[in-house]
Amino acid sequence: MTGPSRRGFFGVAGGLAGGIAAAAATRPAEAHFAGEHALGGEVEPFFGANQAGITTPMQSNLYFAAFDLATDNRQEVIAMLQSWTIAAARMTAGLPAVAGVQEGENPPLDSGEAVGMNPQRLTITFGFGPDMFSLAGKDRYGIAEKRPAALVGLPAFNGDQLVEAQSGGAICIQACADDAQVAFHAVRQLARLSYGTANLKWVQSGFSSGAKTKGTARNLMGFKDGTMNPVGAPLNQTVWVDESGWMQGGSYMVARRIRIALEHWDRTHVAFQEQTFGRAKASGAPLGSKAETDTPDFGATDKDGNYVIAENAHVRLAAPVNNDGAQMLRRSYSYNDGANFVAERWPPWRQGIEYDSGLFFQSYQKDPRSSFVKVFGRMAKIDALNQFTTHVGSAIFACPPGVEQGGYIGQGLFETA
Amino acid sequence: MTGPSRRGFFGVAGGLAGGIAAAAATRPAEAHFAGEHALGGEVEPFFGANQAGITTPMQSNLYFAAFDLATDNRQEVIAMLQSWTIAAARMTAGLPAVAGVQEGENPPLDSGEAVGMNPQRLTITFGFGPDMFSLAGKDRYGIAEKRPAALVGLPAFNGDQLVEAQSGGAICIQACADDAQVAFHAVRQLARLSYGTANLKWVQSGFSSGAKTKGTARNLMGFKDGTMNPVGAPLNQTVWVDESGWMQGGSYMVARRIRIALEHWDRTHVAFQEQTFGRAKASGAPLGSKAETDTPDFGATDKDGNYVIAENAHVRLAAPVNNDGAQMLRRSYSYNDGANFVAERWPPWRQGIEYDSGLFFQSYQKDPRSSFVKVFGRMAKIDALNQFTTHVGSAIFACPPGVEQGGYIGQGLFETA
Repeated sequence: MTGPSRRGFFGVAGGLAGGIAAAAATRPAEAHFAGEHALGGEVEPFFGANQAGITTPMQSNLYFAAFDLATDNRQEVIAMLQSWTIAAARMTAGLPAVAGVQEGENPPLDSGEAVGMNPQRLTITFGFGPDMFSLAGKDRYGIAEKRPAALVGLPAFNGDQLVEAQSGGAICIQACADDAQVAFHAVRQLARLSYGTANLKWVQSGFSSGAKTKGTARNLMGFKDGTMNPVGAPLNQTVWVDESGWMQGGSYMVARRIRIALEHWDRTHVAFQEQTFGRAKASGAPLGSKAETDTPDFGATDKDGNYVIAENAHVRLAAPVNNDGAQMLRRSYSYNDGANFVAERWPPWRQGIEYDSGLFFQSYQKDPRSSFVKVFGRMAKIDALNQFTTHVGSAIFACPPGVEQGGYIGQGLFETA
Repeated sequence: MTGPSRRGFFGVAGGLAGGIAAAAATRPAEAHFAGEHALGGEVEPFFGANQAGITTPMQSNLYFAAFDLATDNRQEVIAMLQSWTIAAARMTAGLPAVAGVQEGENPPLDSGEAVGMNPQRLTITFGFGPDMFSLAGKDRYGIAEKRPAALVGLPAFNGDQLVEAQSGGAICIQACADDAQVAFHAVRQLARLSYGTANLKWVQSGFSSGAKTKGTARNLMGFKDGTMNPVGAPLNQTVWVDESGWMQGGSYMVARRIRIALEHWDRTHVAFQEQTFGRAKASGAPLGSKAETDTPDFGATDKDGNYVIAENAHVRLAAPVNNDGAQMLRRSYSYNDGANFVAERWPPWRQGIEYDSGLFFQSYQKDPRSSFVKVFGRMAKIDALNQFTTHVGSAIFACPPGVEQGGYIGQGLFETA
């Protein structure tokens, strides 16, 4: 959606604020520095039946944060979710996080680094992890029995090298926008609102060139990524929970931080890379086919009787047709977190500084048991890509349905029987 | 500069390739997958009297890499600089790093993740560190006597907490572009070309909202940053070396990785923040003045006789008028490298996970001794900002002048008497 927006320093009077007033007490006097208007820009609606940021076309930047909950008080969690809802609605509309006139003798209502910017298609998506429902066996908020069966603890997968400090979390916030500063700004304000209630556990920033690429965007391995993602009605049927209950209209997010040995990959032959994926690098076409969107012919063999698309090729293992129709929406961002010392685990066993870079994989699905867990369980064992990838972080979250004006995120979890 | 561009998979035939053919052997047959053209976009010229990426208006993204040199062979360094020059010229023009037709039985000529994208104002800037001129007292390449006096070893500054793994380097490559993937892609290809000659030492990615902000962009502290940067003729007089010699038309880069305690800053009062900077947060005006561009009145006092702009305010310490006219061009990017455990050094001495976030400060100047070293030497002692900043990385590089077609970067260093 395209629309006008403006963002004053510590608040702006205007039509958007009126819309949010149903949930937030917006003072008419908040147009304190209304002289600073945003440059044009697009707004993604915050309110609706589903949360934004899931089927929303990918933005350029992601900032993700997982939190532990520091309170045993149910009302405190509800109050936090209410304040997060109001602030998220405001920021996605291009307003500062908190309404009001800034007073110099108080900490800032909003830290201010997004002033003068438009919302850059900002979406803010919330998710609830297993630890929110019960922690060490304790039902802190009286919601343990509402934990959905689909919110499984992910099993240990073959090859997992998970780092506790980059995994799990009781609650998560994901901000996506077409600007890195806008995405970080959003999470930072929400984290400020939850001081003392939610403590940062881990964060991840990411980037995608999707919006700037002609056709399907490429991942850091240089291959088109997302060709088989569902679109249209199948997308909605894949992503959104349709069973009645508090999760109806929500979705389950699986997140995996996957470091990729780019230095190793870059030394392999193109033909080998294509065998690994089962696709041509240039066109993205399945091997043996001509166009990116051609249906892969998994039965085709060469003159020696070998499969054209190898048995351990990524595309074969990922295809719904080879997984009892299992589908998920992949919405992954690449990441670049500097470089550090690595002792390679492949010949000629080099040592040196290598990119801490790869893919912050995310999938959304109505039931991870029949999609991610099923599909990746087999992949983790035999996918040829595993030679280059190491899963170092893992998390799962139940992303509740969207919220309407006056409500708050997760309200159904706390207020329905 | 705006211009058409196209980027095929492993090469593209076209007008741009013709221009680079003076330096690169570009095969006419390289239009292997020319069907994939870039989406529109802007091109920054690579060739010229000065390197691009210094006075170029800031792009949205930075990827910086510092390298150690693994060879003692002068010719090998020259050959590397020649191949880097050709590849950099190609990539800034929207072409793959290396000309030629991709063969499946070889590693990729270009890793491919920027295929289908335009150059996004890509600039690639090279710099030579002290270790290139001599390492442990050894003049490896016969250039030790050409080390400019201005390429000083930076002195230890008050409060330095430098991490060796994020400091120094014999040679650096800085890629800036309006897309994170394009910037990383550029450095990655150049690093691939120098396997065995230059080894990665440290890297840094960064972002800026400058191109998307109305007026002066804000840093992560929420303040406008860069108001006092020189513009026009003073900019050129500040940045470019004018003494004759191989550095004429070049510039010296100082880079400092500055972690900022955002969680601490966000808990302070706005009035205190303004005292710290010496500017109003909303408008950017110097305290006591009305407009961002007003000249600060450093003599003004309040009714109690105290300076309106405190003696330790950042703007007072940074102003050229208080530094014998010392100027530099600041071209800094914010960074976000995840989060990690911090034991705070301020009351109430919290412990927890905090953002590893801050500013990748860069300044360019004709002589760091009379600019950065002088100005920051005093700042490091008394700047009120130091309560929130920690310098954890540091480096200095001599960025040689630009290159014309047929030449290579740093040619003057190696080929003049």
